[in-house]
Amino acid sequence: MATLNDIGVAAAINILTAFAFFLAFAMLRIQPVNDRVYFPKWYIKGLRSSPLVNGSAFASKFVNLDLRSYTRFLNWMPAALQMPEPELIDHAGLDSAVYLRIYLLGLKIFGPIALIAFTVTIPVNWSNNTLEHSGLTYSDIDKTSISNIPIGSHKFWTHLVLAYCFTFWTCYVLKREYEIVAAMRLHFLASDQRRPDQFTVLVRNVPPDPDESVTDLVQHFFLVNHPHHYLSHQLVYDANKLSELVNEKKKIQNWLDFYQNKYKRNPLKRPSLKTGFLGLWGNRVDAIDFYTSIVERLSRDICGEREKVNSNTKSIMPAAFVSFKTRWGAAVCAQTQQSRNPTTWLTEWAPEPRDVYWENLAIPFVFLTIRRLIAAVAFFFLTFFFMIPIAIVQSLANIESIEKALPFLKPIIEVKFIKSFIQGFLPGIALKIFLLLLPTILMMMSKFEGFISLSALERRSASRYYFFQFINVFFGSIITGTAFLQLNHFIHQSTSQIPKTIGVSIPMKATFFITYIMVDGWAGVAGEILRLKPLIIYHLKNSFLVKTEKDREEAMDPGTVGFNTGEPQIQLYFLLGLVYAVVTPILLPFITVFFALAYVVYSHQIINVYHQEYESAAAFWPDVHVRVVAALIVSQLLLMGLLSTKEASQSTPLLITLPVLTICFHRFCKGRYEPAFVRYPLQEAMMKDTLERAKEANLNLKGFLQNAYIHPVFKSADGSDSESESEWERSPALVATKRTSKRFTPMPSKDGGSLLSLDQVNDECLKP
Amino acid sequence: MATLNDIGVAAAINILTAFAFFLAFAMLRIQPVNDRVYFPKWYIKGLRSSPLVNGSAFASKFVNLDLRSYTRFLNWMPAALQMPEPELIDHAGLDSAVYLRIYLLGLKIFGPIALIAFTVTIPVNWSNNTLEHSGLTYSDIDKTSISNIPIGSHKFWTHLVLAYCFTFWTCYVLKREYEIVAAMRLHFLASDQRRPDQFTVLVRNVPPDPDESVTDLVQHFFLVNHPHHYLSHQLVYDANKLSELVNEKKKIQNWLDFYQNKYKRNPLKRPSLKTGFLGLWGNRVDAIDFYTSIVERLSRDICGEREKVNSNTKSIMPAAFVSFKTRWGAAVCAQTQQSRNPTTWLTEWAPEPRDVYWENLAIPFVFLTIRRLIAAVAFFFLTFFFMIPIAIVQSLANIESIEKALPFLKPIIEVKFIKSFIQGFLPGIALKIFLLLLPTILMMMSKFEGFISLSALERRSASRYYFFQFINVFFGSIITGTAFLQLNHFIHQSTSQIPKTIGVSIPMKATFFITYIMVDGWAGVAGEILRLKPLIIYHLKNSFLVKTEKDREEAMDPGTVGFNTGEPQIQLYFLLGLVYAVVTPILLPFITVFFALAYVVYSHQIINVYHQEYESAAAFWPDVHVRVVAALIVSQLLLMGLLSTKEASQSTPLLITLPVLTICFHRFCKGRYEPAFVRYPLQEAMMKDTLERAKEANLNLKGFLQNAYIHPVFKSADGSDSESESEWERSPALVATKRTSKRFTPMPSKDGGSLLSLDQVNDECLKP
Repeated sequence: MATLNDIGVAAAINILTAFAFFLAFAMLRIQPVNDRVYFPKWYIKGLRSSPLVNGSAFASKFVNLDLRSYTRFLNWMPAALQMPEPELIDHAGLDSAVYLRIYLLGLKIFGPIALIAFTVTIPVNWSNNTLEHSGLTYSDIDKTSISNIPIGSHKFWTHLVLAYCFTFWTCYVLKREYEIVAAMRLHFLASDQRRPDQFTVLVRNVPPDPDESVTDLVQHFFLVNHPHHYLSHQLVYDANKLSELVNEKKKIQNWLDFYQNKYKRNPLKRPSLKTGFLGLWGNRVDAIDFYTSIVERLSRDICGEREKVNSNTKSIMPAAFVSFKTRWGAAVCAQTQQSRNPTTWLTEWAPEPRDVYWENLAIPFVFLTIRRLIAAVAFFFLTFFFMIPIAIVQSLANIESIEKALPFLKPIIEVKFIKSFIQGFLPGIALKIFLLLLPTILMMMSKFEGFISLSALERRSASRYYFFQFINVFFGSIITGTAFLQLNHFIHQSTSQIPKTIGVSIPMKATFFITYIMVDGWAGVAGEILRLKPLIIYHLKNSFLVKTEKDREEAMDPGTVGFNTGEPQIQLYFLLGLVYAVVTPILLPFITVFFALAYVVYSHQIINVYHQEYESAAAFWPDVHVRVVAALIVSQLLLMGLLSTKEASQSTPLLITLPVLTICFHRFCKGRYEPAFVRYPLQEAMMKDTLERAKEANLNLKGFLQNAYIHPVFKSADGSDSESESEWERSPALVATKRTSKRFTPMPSKDGGSLLSLDQVNDECLKP
Repeated sequence: MATLNDIGVAAAINILTAFAFFLAFAMLRIQPVNDRVYFPKWYIKGLRSSPLVNGSAFASKFVNLDLRSYTRFLNWMPAALQMPEPELIDHAGLDSAVYLRIYLLGLKIFGPIALIAFTVTIPVNWSNNTLEHSGLTYSDIDKTSISNIPIGSHKFWTHLVLAYCFTFWTCYVLKREYEIVAAMRLHFLASDQRRPDQFTVLVRNVPPDPDESVTDLVQHFFLVNHPHHYLSHQLVYDANKLSELVNEKKKIQNWLDFYQNKYKRNPLKRPSLKTGFLGLWGNRVDAIDFYTSIVERLSRDICGEREKVNSNTKSIMPAAFVSFKTRWGAAVCAQTQQSRNPTTWLTEWAPEPRDVYWENLAIPFVFLTIRRLIAAVAFFFLTFFFMIPIAIVQSLANIESIEKALPFLKPIIEVKFIKSFIQGFLPGIALKIFLLLLPTILMMMSKFEGFISLSALERRSASRYYFFQFINVFFGSIITGTAFLQLNHFIHQSTSQIPKTIGVSIPMKATFFITYIMVDGWAGVAGEILRLKPLIIYHLKNSFLVKTEKDREEAMDPGTVGFNTGEPQIQLYFLLGLVYAVVTPILLPFITVFFALAYVVYSHQIINVYHQEYESAAAFWPDVHVRVVAALIVSQLLLMGLLSTKEASQSTPLLITLPVLTICFHRFCKGRYEPAFVRYPLQEAMMKDTLERAKEANLNLKGFLQNAYIHPVFKSADGSDSESESEWERSPALVATKRTSKRFTPMPSKDGGSLLSLDQVNDECLKP
């Protein structure tokens, strides 16, 4: 049990660490040489092309010599907060702006709650002396918690009333925030900009037809069933192998650049390398020639593969992006069932072109259910049994087995200092590595499941990561035991006993979580702003690979916010805050500080660093909302368990009402606001269509939608997208059917027809 | 513990009872005087107008004197089975035909299962002598059950393999049946007949607008957002008070008829009655004059109320039936979100006109969520605490309190025979009355919840009734205790203990359930065919009220199948069959006989008696399916609990897999077949539209949809529907808007406009 003093010391250490990070950041960021690491977003937007330099000397190109700028080392903080929200949306996208609102939500919820808790709960708890008389060891922290109230006391009514207050306040803030975000989303979608995904629907599982090709089939189906709205379509190709080759070529090209740079700097000695594993053995060859030959071979392979994708009907997936003449037509098609068989002609909104995860479009639809099942089972085992393989690794990786395997290390290991270091360090390392890899593992799982947009992948990973943390960090810390042991424990325990068991241990773990918040939250967030890893990688790349300005831009790699790792972390703080709000309110200021700090830091990062990969228009908000509500319900159940051991059973009916009310609140919000994130109202679509018709009567929509949904591997390679623009008129307006039953096929719309023919893209390949 | 002999005796008694019912039915049905009770459907269809009489004498009008017909007293059975399904659908509707398939489903599932269980399980169980050595009392029935197998025996593998076989067989049959029913539904919907609900969508929660009336608002909204498809709309009026008055008038008219008939038969004495409570006291008045005056007053009230509904804007509900020019347009509107605010302009398929439950259309939409919550809480208490009020009534209604309240009854009650009769009878009577009233209570709950179609009301009542039976009949019989005690028991028990507790008691309750099946199933179904209650009511009405042929037709009142009471009963048998299939297979033949008997009886009733009130096109099948699947999962969990007490724990992983597989099967079926019952594919709609356009180019669809969705109280009263037919052209084609912002309103479609004006209907009222 830590005393207030211990907490104070820990706080001081963490505050100093955070301060040191900020100081280091302040130093590094004003060095011109680091400018591209700390302000990449401005470079990408084209608003900044070279560091802001005061002096003109050579040194000032790399080091900032202006001493005045060092004195204002925290001035990025107000700067980060000054950008108004509409400008932020314009600058960084709605996703990022709404992501920041999650931190604001935390501040809005926990600010007032902390205030009330401090003025009401702490005096009520403090004014008892149960712990003094109990003969248990206790600390000042425990004196401020609910443990200090005698069993059966009437003072528990205070906590009950506060639980109601906090629930109502949280729900009120949640509802208001949901309302605002939904309005922001609708406003964003309705804003004047025309986007291809507004007109496009992804249709999957086109049934095979012996008479017609997929493209004819799609065209006929939509000409028949959406005669006044169908515009064009874009087939989906299985180009996974092609994009693999392109990536491979890019990697080899990097190595080639590296050796060419090396040779340029030292023209006397041509660089060479060994061809074997990791360059450790094998024949020694000339590096530049070696990589040039590989690049040439890959270029040939790519052209061959592209030819194959084009000519082979097997690489055409039974799916297509179907574009409509109006938003109304697309909204109708996306929200209705097309065919009698509900498993064919499945339509859904097409994700934004940047958001499409192309690899998964090639998965046949039948396998999706099986994949989903496998992923669910795998995740279950991952969550509840992940300790088993780690324990095995730990038992293998002890000093004895290392000495056996690598006997020449024995003298070094046997040094007492090193030995104790390894013994202390080794058992933990497997677990640490696993936890570092976890987000990647979860992302791979989501990819395996077959989601077709990056945003959906990240959302699914986030919810799994949250669940893992909920079981293994939150419950794991409280019960102290692996998830599997907990599961076993709970199965053999009566249902009403579970909240009690956990409820009782909660107040005892408060100090642990306070330390956790300071280390993971405070210092972690401050470390985030330093961007140590990107800084090192950038400088390495800059020294070895960069030849042109374009290379330097690629080396910046600002990354994205990382919804799949960031959001679950925030949610853990919501959970801790809500659970401890009534029980041990001393925890609340720590959480409030975390939210404030994180808000400032991430505001800065989003404005200056992160570059969004896609725009999902805040589609993740329902997830955020539902997890906070779930945390609220968990906190209520645990409070019920805790109070029932305190013989305050007259409060049970009132406590049962609370989760029921919260669930009602959730259902209300789901009905009222969730549709804004899932569906697209016809009224909205019609309004935009009418406005657009009035403003731009002669709009060439087909030209606009032309290449929106071409696989990026066709688009990017050799810059073919600029040329095919004018060729779309070439495509046939009417695809003759080979089917005998033409009865229900009306004449095609005047400008109907298949947009894509891969020929255009592939013409590139045939050019010398 | 009943022996095989006891069961045999019980079976004999029940078979004799059933036989007696059949004999009585055979006698009664061939009497011409009962013809309208046993063959009302044919009268309603107009295929039969007077009993089939052989002789010509006066007596033969009432009594069948043809002795030959008595000898063929069971010949209705093959007759009931001879009607082929397409003809049955034509004759009685798809709902009834599919309802019969539930019984067939039972036969298909349990026939083969019973066969296998008898050839495999019973010999395996019988070949042990655990019970002989156990020192427990046991019967031959128990020797055929799983209890006879020694603990830890390898013979449990037989049961495990059989559990897998039975699960696969059940799933196979279920899937096939779902497929067939879905195809039947789609074929039925696609069949050539044009129905108003194919073109109509119910829109609810039209937002209030200070500038425009509801009718203008609806018209403008749909003209704007569905410009090419909107045809017309029909407002919804709150005519509940009006229809109450109409019903009141009908009831009083009945009494008037009764006294007029009485007077006609005995012209010497004018009938009189007392006006007080139940005619027991008050002034004595002339009955005919009295009722004539009431009827006149009610007629005036009805006209006044009709005037009010017409003129008062408050009686116009913010809802409307919106009709479209094509099925495609209606399908689109029903399946999409209209407005930015997802709680306004809510669209759903309009139920069939006969299926609409008009009273609930007047419920404001905001209250629906609250009502649903209240109903859920009420149902929870009803299920788990229904014994409390009954116990209170029982404790009050004992002999002492009766003697105290009504002392003059004391001498009669004190007679020993009567006293013991009352004492034995009284405690049960409250429970019996409650159980008889339960379906009505549940139906009232569903009505309170605000469903707007009769079919939805019945479906909801059925699922609640099933849940009640599941908890109180199935679990209640096994655990022997009220649901509340069970709940309390389970909360304080470990989660893994629950299936064990129930699993162990299952084999011991087999004989009870066999008796239950015979009494409730065999004798109950045989009693169903006798129609004792309608028989008595018909003859009473016939003697006292019937004046004209039309009255006689009304007196027939064939009733409906009663999905809300019938289906839960069948489901209980599915549950029993699946649970006992592996444990005590001797129960299976009893269930198979029930399904066969019920199939024949209900076939006969559906062909000859029941008259369907509405046609939901088998919309209830997903409910039937999901309940059988749930029963399957329950049976698997209970088997797992049972085997875990038998120390056959090596089988647990295999047993856990079974429910997981079953849930996967359910999800597959839900994805594959359920959409056919919920949504309407656009392809289908477009095909029908195109066909219709080709066949009937000059169809007057507006005329067809004219009065389809007028409240029946406007339609039936005074036969106004025949006249307004030609007046619809009078309604204005364009409703001028009072709003200033006309920008987005296109010109109305050529034949657009509000169909209904109540004037037409109300002209009737003003005529002398």
